[in-house]
Amino acid sequence: MSDSALAQLRALLGPRGVLTAAEDMIGYETGARYDRGHALAVLRPATTEEVSQAVAICVRHGLHIIPQGGNTGLVSGATPDASGQQVVLSLQRLTGSFALDADNRSVTLGAGYRLSEVNRRLAAEGLSFPIDLGADPAIGGMIATNTGGARFLRYGDVRANVLGLTVVLADAAGTVLQLGGALYKNNTGVDWRQLFIGTSGSFGIITEAVLRLHPLPRDQAAAILVPSSGAAVLPLLRAMEDRLGPELSAFEGMSGNAMQAALQHVPGLRTPFAEGLPDYAILAEVSRARRPRLGEAGAEDLLQEVLADIIEERPDLLVDARFGAHDRIWALRHALSEGVKAMGRLIAFDLAFRRGDIMRFCDQMKAQMPDRFPGVTICDFGHIGDGGVHFNLVVAADSALATDPAQEAALRDWVFDVTVRDFGGSFSAEHAIGRKNQRWHDLYTPDSHRRLSRALRAATSPAGLGAVTFG
Amino acid sequence: MSDSALAQLRALLGPRGVLTAAEDMIGYETGARYDRGHALAVLRPATTEEVSQAVAICVRHGLHIIPQGGNTGLVSGATPDASGQQVVLSLQRLTGSFALDADNRSVTLGAGYRLSEVNRRLAAEGLSFPIDLGADPAIGGMIATNTGGARFLRYGDVRANVLGLTVVLADAAGTVLQLGGALYKNNTGVDWRQLFIGTSGSFGIITEAVLRLHPLPRDQAAAILVPSSGAAVLPLLRAMEDRLGPELSAFEGMSGNAMQAALQHVPGLRTPFAEGLPDYAILAEVSRARRPRLGEAGAEDLLQEVLADIIEERPDLLVDARFGAHDRIWALRHALSEGVKAMGRLIAFDLAFRRGDIMRFCDQMKAQMPDRFPGVTICDFGHIGDGGVHFNLVVAADSALATDPAQEAALRDWVFDVTVRDFGGSFSAEHAIGRKNQRWHDLYTPDSHRRLSRALRAATSPAGLGAVTFG
Repeated sequence: MSDSALAQLRALLGPRGVLTAAEDMIGYETGARYDRGHALAVLRPATTEEVSQAVAICVRHGLHIIPQGGNTGLVSGATPDASGQQVVLSLQRLTGSFALDADNRSVTLGAGYRLSEVNRRLAAEGLSFPIDLGADPAIGGMIATNTGGARFLRYGDVRANVLGLTVVLADAAGTVLQLGGALYKNNTGVDWRQLFIGTSGSFGIITEAVLRLHPLPRDQAAAILVPSSGAAVLPLLRAMEDRLGPELSAFEGMSGNAMQAALQHVPGLRTPFAEGLPDYAILAEVSRARRPRLGEAGAEDLLQEVLADIIEERPDLLVDARFGAHDRIWALRHALSEGVKAMGRLIAFDLAFRRGDIMRFCDQMKAQMPDRFPGVTICDFGHIGDGGVHFNLVVAADSALATDPAQEAALRDWVFDVTVRDFGGSFSAEHAIGRKNQRWHDLYTPDSHRRLSRALRAATSPAGLGAVTFG
Repeated sequence: MSDSALAQLRALLGPRGVLTAAEDMIGYETGARYDRGHALAVLRPATTEEVSQAVAICVRHGLHIIPQGGNTGLVSGATPDASGQQVVLSLQRLTGSFALDADNRSVTLGAGYRLSEVNRRLAAEGLSFPIDLGADPAIGGMIATNTGGARFLRYGDVRANVLGLTVVLADAAGTVLQLGGALYKNNTGVDWRQLFIGTSGSFGIITEAVLRLHPLPRDQAAAILVPSSGAAVLPLLRAMEDRLGPELSAFEGMSGNAMQAALQHVPGLRTPFAEGLPDYAILAEVSRARRPRLGEAGAEDLLQEVLADIIEERPDLLVDARFGAHDRIWALRHALSEGVKAMGRLIAFDLAFRRGDIMRFCDQMKAQMPDRFPGVTICDFGHIGDGGVHFNLVVAADSALATDPAQEAALRDWVFDVTVRDFGGSFSAEHAIGRKNQRWHDLYTPDSHRRLSRALRAATSPAGLGAVTFG
């Protein structure tokens, strides 16, 4: 059966469009953080029409399709299973169209464009797609994951910045849906875009998008702030928001452990704290649309004034503030992930809370972890402004937690349980659902939601699609 | 059958909770702009649990339910039909809970709260739910309509500001769904909230919501700008966005006809143009989070500087700019709707376009209207910053267009057709779908979308619910 399918797919996509050699497929079979699968073939269509026809062939032959963008996801949402029977459908070649509408501040583009390439092109026009991430995903994958990133409190997540989508359904016809267009206001029925945002390609395959763009800031300043305690973090955030509104473009928390890991393992970083790292620090950023005129206060003056004002009004909140070159300050923040990974075996959580609960959760974990799971180093960092926490744990590579999957599973169960049941938090803030957290999706998702998912799945893509089952 | 249903509903909701007298029901049976229906009864539950049980009784007895919030919608999305067999379910009494979480910048509240009351309570905390509208809807109705308003370009629509929803389905059990909670980042499955936002209560009844809040601006300034021509409007918008970013909080277009109608019919207004109205003007607003310090430039200085800068760089764009008291400038903008209504018979359209198409559409209409439909006065105004146009037409009360429904229908068909087919625009930007535009929903919605809607309807609220059929 699959021989005839592959022959038809080769006839449709050409030899460049169908990979079956082990050495060609391995990059598509390997997740960015976890897992290695094995695919029957990797398909590389170049247009929506080719995706539609390829899907129809796969559906006809009962082949399960795993859509894949830049393959930078962290929860194995685009990785085939080990069966060797699934087909990876890579969207990387969908880079045909790139139509900028500067008046509308929007761009219509193929799902295969990488974020960096999109922003490189837009920068020339003074525009940006402002989702700021450590990785360089393809646009389609970003949408299927609904990534958030470090500037959520200014720009929102991907969902807030998608105007239109083209989606191919895994049905017998490979039905193509055009959803939304390039309009900001459009309330003419059910907003079907939303079903495909953040659902890992399990209801349909995103082939094209219309993105909302923003003016590239022309004046930015950042500082590293040391709060007097965990309890001071939220009052500090609120005091800055009150004074800066949308000019506050980042408010990122960094634990001392995470900073130490970065400084130790990532070459070229310089510590802003020569005399020793604090337990916790905040990267705060101010962004302004315009360059300051001669004599006018710029972003750095504004940040300094606002901090001086806060210190005067609430002298109990801040114990230190370090200014420095904008790039150098962000280099530390962006190095945290790499630094933590280099420390040992990483057990990563992508959690979210009500903003006021973040520090309370972290404190509780710090108090209970040594008894429950000795040998764990907590290297948390993340997005205080939106409640997101990359709650990253590091264990020695030869420890029981690293070598015994049951121990790791017990740790994960406990952390997720405290997050979801005790704090009403989220077990996946911005990495979405993949094979890696399917188990917890199933545990925490009410039956009423899963029933809805099954009905929508049957109505959209009844054939095998995606690495995740929401129903 | 309905006698026994009414008896059960009275037992559940008490006499205050079930209205059947004609004089008690008329306010609920009459749309804010169009139509008068006739209901079997009006139900007024006060809690989610009461809504759930009332719905279960209605479903058991085959009663069609029309959910209704503040009854301020403009397209008869909450008005019963003329049969006298539908039940209006008013959510106005759902004002039990109002739980502000200032750290999280969110509030959890019953769907019955009016927007004005929400913002009155929030103002005391320096916060706001910043959807700016002419009407004073209930929160549940705003969500079911996905209203946008005059500050979309700064804050987005309702969809961008809803964190969580409680929804009652019209199934045999009156199933209650808890969707989202108070989290900013949460990607743990299908985002079911989205299917209840902007769908007029036809898939489920919104009883409670968690809203995202924003700091109340403490320094605002507005000006009325006269562009040199329609072609100058978009370059002017872009020049202001480039310099102001999110500090530009409104960019509203007002036609000379609409301004004239307001000045003529709304008492207490003063014209900013003593020497005669221009063909078109823009209300531009700057909002800042903080009050300026002594000697510091405030919002009005900033607006003046930015305009001076634009005039220097592009002397061809602006012919006039009038500053004035912030409230007085907005009073003119907010009076347009009332003024236009007082001019004669109103035929209103709530359209949206790519931003660059708005003035082109209006110019085309102005050129073609006199031949196609003589006697029509075009009084457009709206939201240049987000592409929305309240394309309001006024005809004499005794003209054929006012008295012959077929002529009005022909006019509507033509305007919608140019909007949707020639410009790729939206026939309902922010008023959503109601009885009044059901016909054009059916005309312009592809079968593939309607098939999905039917599946969704079957999986959520298979019983009779809502004034609109999306499938």
